[in-house]
Amino acid sequence: MKTAIFFLLDDYADWEGAYLSSTLNKKEDWIVKTASIQREVTSIGGFTTKIDFLMDELPKQIDLFIMVGGNSWGIENKSLFTLVKNYLEGEVTVGSICGAVDYLARNGFLNDHKHTGNSLYLWESFENYTNGANFMEKQAVRDQQLVTANGTAPNEFTKLILEAIEFDGTEAIEKTMYMNQYGFYNYCEKYGNPFF
Amino acid sequence: MKTAIFFLLDDYADWEGAYLSSTLNKKEDWIVKTASIQREVTSIGGFTTKIDFLMDELPKQIDLFIMVGGNSWGIENKSLFTLVKNYLEGEVTVGSICGAVDYLARNGFLNDHKHTGNSLYLWESFENYTNGANFMEKQAVRDQQLVTANGTAPNEFTKLILEAIEFDGTEAIEKTMYMNQYGFYNYCEKYGNPFF
Repeated sequence: MKTAIFFLLDDYADWEGAYLSSTLNKKEDWIVKTASIQREVTSIGGFTTKIDFLMDELPKQIDLFIMVGGNSWGIENKSLFTLVKNYLEGEVTVGSICGAVDYLARNGFLNDHKHTGNSLYLWESFENYTNGANFMEKQAVRDQQLVTANGTAPNEFTKLILEAIEFDGTEAIEKTMYMNQYGFYNYCEKYGNPFF
Repeated sequence: MKTAIFFLLDDYADWEGAYLSSTLNKKEDWIVKTASIQREVTSIGGFTTKIDFLMDELPKQIDLFIMVGGNSWGIENKSLFTLVKNYLEGEVTVGSICGAVDYLARNGFLNDHKHTGNSLYLWESFENYTNGANFMEKQAVRDQQLVTANGTAPNEFTKLILEAIEFDGTEAIEKTMYMNQYGFYNYCEKYGNPFF
């Protein structure tokens, strides 16, 4: 069984992890669990999520660490800093989207990877961010084991993560993403009706 | 203050209510609350949601009732049946997506409205569904105060609900939806960069 941890803070963005978590957790050999610095968080959309793991309860062995964006990523937390550092220096695939990429930029975690995020402009005052040359103006970017995305890119983010963890074949991932982004009727026109 | 209730069952679809709940709950004069038949439900994606209201705790006056799809809509529950009936016979805007539309079909709630859903084919055995002529092959359909959608249509669903509740002007809703569906860079090409 492979474990994906979705790290959430209060005021997290409902839509950013939704496609990815549901795609992963439906598959027999993957399980999705949530983690945070507190027992409960409430999403931007007003859903209260009961968290599975506090920081010190996390399993030692995980396969994917997803940092879901939102409005609380101005956070200063030593345990979180160390956790992210260890994952990025190890072999865990890390996905970070929207406000969570701001956190990576501010803490100097983007200096060795090509990446994207909401806007380079937002990071001008971040002293530890020295890699503006490798900010790509794309919906999502994968470099080594790090996937980054802006907050309007849940689908592209999902696609690059699924590719990074070799979740399925390229064509199957492409089709899933097309269905999610463009909907059933456009999918049928392009690929045929999947039910008949 | 206007209240939107998102009704969730176990194994609910994470992505179906995400755009709508976050858009509503960000606005000052709307609040999103969750309701269910039990205190906790877990999404398809593995997020455990702590429910705000059981059926008998719901406020008498609500403004929007959203039935989020998922895998548990084969449910038989008298209180739920009565609740949905009262909302549809009253003036509450009701939104139902994916598996939740199957529930409406099975219980005869679609016979007076144009509608859509995942597939007409799935409803062939539903004795109380007699309105196949008004099943529209579209991502989402609004008729009177009822909005229905298939499970790949969270954006179109959101758009029609926002129009139904007169949440914002048509152009603003159109732009929000374009950003959500096609992402930041396509949005900038069409409408210009919203930040500068």
